[in-house]
Amino acid sequence: MSERRLVGPVRIVGAGLLGSSIGLALRQHGVDVILADVSPSSVTLAVDYGAGRLAAEGDNPDLIVVCVPPDVTATIVAAELAAYPNALVTDVASVKSAPLAELRALGADISRYIGSHPMAGRERGGAASARADLFVGRPWVIAGHDGISYRRAAPVEDLALDLGALPIEMDVVEHDASVALVSHVPQVVASLLAARLQEASDTAIGLAGQGLRDTTRIASSAPELWVQILGANAPRSAEILAAFRTDLDRVITALESPDAQGSRRAIAETIASGNAGVARIPGKHGQARHFARITVKVDDKPGELARLLTEIGELGVNMEDLTLEHSPGAQIGLAEIAVVPEVEITLIAELEKRGWKIAGVTQ
Amino acid sequence: MSERRLVGPVRIVGAGLLGSSIGLALRQHGVDVILADVSPSSVTLAVDYGAGRLAAEGDNPDLIVVCVPPDVTATIVAAELAAYPNALVTDVASVKSAPLAELRALGADISRYIGSHPMAGRERGGAASARADLFVGRPWVIAGHDGISYRRAAPVEDLALDLGALPIEMDVVEHDASVALVSHVPQVVASLLAARLQEASDTAIGLAGQGLRDTTRIASSAPELWVQILGANAPRSAEILAAFRTDLDRVITALESPDAQGSRRAIAETIASGNAGVARIPGKHGQARHFARITVKVDDKPGELARLLTEIGELGVNMEDLTLEHSPGAQIGLAEIAVVPEVEITLIAELEKRGWKIAGVTQ
Repeated sequence: MSERRLVGPVRIVGAGLLGSSIGLALRQHGVDVILADVSPSSVTLAVDYGAGRLAAEGDNPDLIVVCVPPDVTATIVAAELAAYPNALVTDVASVKSAPLAELRALGADISRYIGSHPMAGRERGGAASARADLFVGRPWVIAGHDGISYRRAAPVEDLALDLGALPIEMDVVEHDASVALVSHVPQVVASLLAARLQEASDTAIGLAGQGLRDTTRIASSAPELWVQILGANAPRSAEILAAFRTDLDRVITALESPDAQGSRRAIAETIASGNAGVARIPGKHGQARHFARITVKVDDKPGELARLLTEIGELGVNMEDLTLEHSPGAQIGLAEIAVVPEVEITLIAELEKRGWKIAGVTQ
Repeated sequence: MSERRLVGPVRIVGAGLLGSSIGLALRQHGVDVILADVSPSSVTLAVDYGAGRLAAEGDNPDLIVVCVPPDVTATIVAAELAAYPNALVTDVASVKSAPLAELRALGADISRYIGSHPMAGRERGGAASARADLFVGRPWVIAGHDGISYRRAAPVEDLALDLGALPIEMDVVEHDASVALVSHVPQVVASLLAARLQEASDTAIGLAGQGLRDTTRIASSAPELWVQILGANAPRSAEILAAFRTDLDRVITALESPDAQGSRRAIAETIASGNAGVARIPGKHGQARHFARITVKVDDKPGELARLLTEIGELGVNMEDLTLEHSPGAQIGLAEIAVVPEVEITLIAELEKRGWKIAGVTQ
């Protein structure tokens, strides 16, 4: 709480997952948070969750965060700018060029508006899924434009920092091109792939493994939201999808004549290009830090995993990550423990001394 | 060990991930396992890992499991059929029509051959990644054909059952069509999507979230293997990819004219079709069993997670799954614990009584 930058009050319009999560986090810092939503039941739920208080006569917020669907973002931002002539207004919509253009068209005072986009979310929406730590360690784009000074926009950076996010400055065009690539096109591709499963036989679906689950997980996203996002970032998404299609055509041609000259090479190059592309994504924690991953066999009975972790704790080792693999019917589970490489050898020796079986180690 | 069906000896040709994992599991059942590999160092490593023994004069295996790349599967199967005239031979290649056709062309004695395909694997290959429980709970396709009787093929079903897998009978054509849909096409799509990242700016890549990571994870697969798999299942994969392309064209057209009549509807229908497709995939454990997922806040210091799990163990509750979310710099981690729904309410109450903070619960 000592490091809080924002003073407040902060007004949050839209008490869904993002708005409520921002509210929860700011309340933990002791900031006065005012919540508003077109739905009285949504705002009541968010207040009950501790994400802030209802608006009151004479509220005079320093900062307003608009957390509503992309389609209505510009309208609400314009209304807030007009209603609170001293406040800085930001939004969290996942597209940034379209709302800015719309605000300009509406004649809004964009010298007090700067868009932002926290790269965080959950599959489940609503205040009930809100988490104060939703933004911790996540990039938070602040999408500058030439109508506002850096100094005036500083409270949005403070907001991101107070919430534990990593502020990234980027103009609206670069932002939209970037998210088309890392978010909007992957959504379309996952949806198209999952759509192929609609008419599959139960037998075929029964063979699904982790690969299919991973590649299609985000296909469960809400159509209403994505119509808005893709509509607002259409040209750039279309451009990337067109390049994807060119590559796809090459694979289809190769597979239609698998013995033709160049077919094997075309397929190999496709997979190799994918290798090169995926290698560019930073690690789980958004950084290149490598951990040693030690897999330990754990009997499948209550208390065994706890005993393992107790002993790791007694050794003074902090786990960076933990994954438990557990198959139905199997008598053992496998706990994969990620630790900093410096402690790997000692930890393995100590665990083996205590009778644990190490099933594998990877860097 | 009491439920072992196979008698053995079992000969395994190819001491990579699958061959070594089968060997490890059979050795746990006390079956005599003979290992062979073109690479002396690979077979030595697998023997050291406890996956079996080296071949010896006078070996007379009942069952031979060929675990080599798809390209050479038929050749090796034919050689094994000739070398061991009393043995039943199976293989584990991920395509089934092409090897059978090749064996027929080679004039091999297919009355002693039945292909199979365990739907299991890991991102890391080789004997060093082998695990006896690799097949537990996983589908294991036995790809029948009209050249062999069910009775003669029974030991392959015994093998699958001894390894804890779920045998599924399917003819070679149905098998190849099914894996094209659930495995081969997803691989191509993930690779094509990841390939788009090759020329992305570091800034754009820096915005990558879990969605991009999931959709592209399998793009790190080996080109050599996939050239073989896709080459051997080309027509069916091409057909599904062509249908994918038809849908993709519709999205691109809509995004190129986002304000045209029908564009929003085309996008909404694409996302909705993806929703419907992904909903058909059974849960993580290959069954529809739902677990309650309780998210508990855990201080980021050694021993805290252990304390939580100890207390859960003391309550006699068995965890079905455990995921730890931990962000760099955050002072708390979140442990998501999956339990059978019957214990959910009691567990939450008991944890709260002990001072744990529940961050969320989902079904």
